Amino acid sequence: MIKYPNGKSPVSKAPSTKRRLQNAANRGMGLEGDINLSNEYYKNTNRALITKRPTPVNVVKVDYQRGARITDAYFEKQSTTDYNGVYKGKYLDFEAKSTTSKTSFPLHNISAHQIEHLNRVLAQGGICFFIVEFSVLNRVYLIDAHVIIDFYNHETRKSIPLEIFETKGLALTLSFSPRINYLDAVDQFYHL
Amino acid sequence: MIKYPNGKSPVSKAPSTKRRLQNAANRGMGLEGDINLSNEYYKNTNRALITKRPTPVNVVKVDYQRGARITDAYFEKQSTTDYNGVYKGKYLDFEAKSTTSKTSFPLHNISAHQIEHLNRVLAQGGICFFIVEFSVLNRVYLIDAHVIIDFYNHETRKSIPLEIFETKGLALTLSFSPRINYLDAVDQFYHL
Repeated sequence: MIKYPNGKSPVSKAPSTKRRLQNAANRGMGLEGDINLSNEYYKNTNRALITKRPTPVNVVKVDYQRGARITDAYFEKQSTTDYNGVYKGKYLDFEAKSTTSKTSFPLHNISAHQIEHLNRVLAQGGICFFIVEFSVLNRVYLIDAHVIIDFYNHETRKSIPLEIFETKGLALTLSFSPRINYLDAVDQFYHL
Repeated sequence: MIKYPNGKSPVSKAPSTKRRLQNAANRGMGLEGDINLSNEYYKNTNRALITKRPTPVNVVKVDYQRGARITDAYFEKQSTTDYNGVYKGKYLDFEAKSTTSKTSFPLHNISAHQIEHLNRVLAQGGICFFIVEFSVLNRVYLIDAHVIIDFYNHETRKSIPLEIFETKGLALTLSFSPRINYLDAVDQFYHL
């Protein structure tokens, strides 16, 4: 087999692996897309109503001559989580993250604002969790926010080992519709 | 007294009236500001966690040479409501609207998407309402979403008379902190 100088091999990969690898390169846009599709499915089947908060944009300049066209603006960091909604009368709040690591989930993916937000939601009786994708391993887990918050607050290490997800989280599988049936895991974990 | 050709009088008005009149001109930005401040107060006093969804922006062009600066974009219409959150374990979802009318609330203020959204939230057991300001009258009401949805679906008229707000809604008062204590009205109306 020819060795290419850039390390790339011309051998075509199976679609699923290829897709996951692309996702990793896209910094988790694939996971987000799967969750958005799942939420659309849940909405259309009246199972739940979960929405993604739009990315906040700080608008600097607007051209009103062109019908309120924004000509200068920048993205702001979300100080909350990306998703929230209502399911069986309960308030759900969660964040979706993807990592290319094969061994652990780096905590720098989560901001102090998000931890504060989750603590406040928990204090109000909301249900909070993370959906974490290990994109290279092709594995996705749902894990209760308490586990992540505990690690964030008390552990000295800067990442959460995969083992924690395997023991304290629930593995999610990909399917056609919904793409990621995370509400089944919510039912199971929170006894809804 | 001199009559000015543009109809403006130089007599200074009391701050509250002046402010409300400005609000009207700003198409309800004053009401929104009051609600945002109230939500901040509720957050800081651990009473509830209600957040405003950012206005969705459709980004057309980004200049990555300038640190991901957005150079072309436009505002999208919110297909949900503006506010949602968690209070005493319940999911809350509401919309804030202001009208300059002294007699009724025009329904063109509400989109079909928002009505659909509210119906879905209600089906999941969420609590839905509107906070409506009659800015010229200097009155603000909390009214259950069912009342608005019923009018939207069944009535032939294109606005909801003030009388309906007086009989079926709860009048809210302005105070220093929180600016609009709408959660007291939520407690009262929904028996929380």
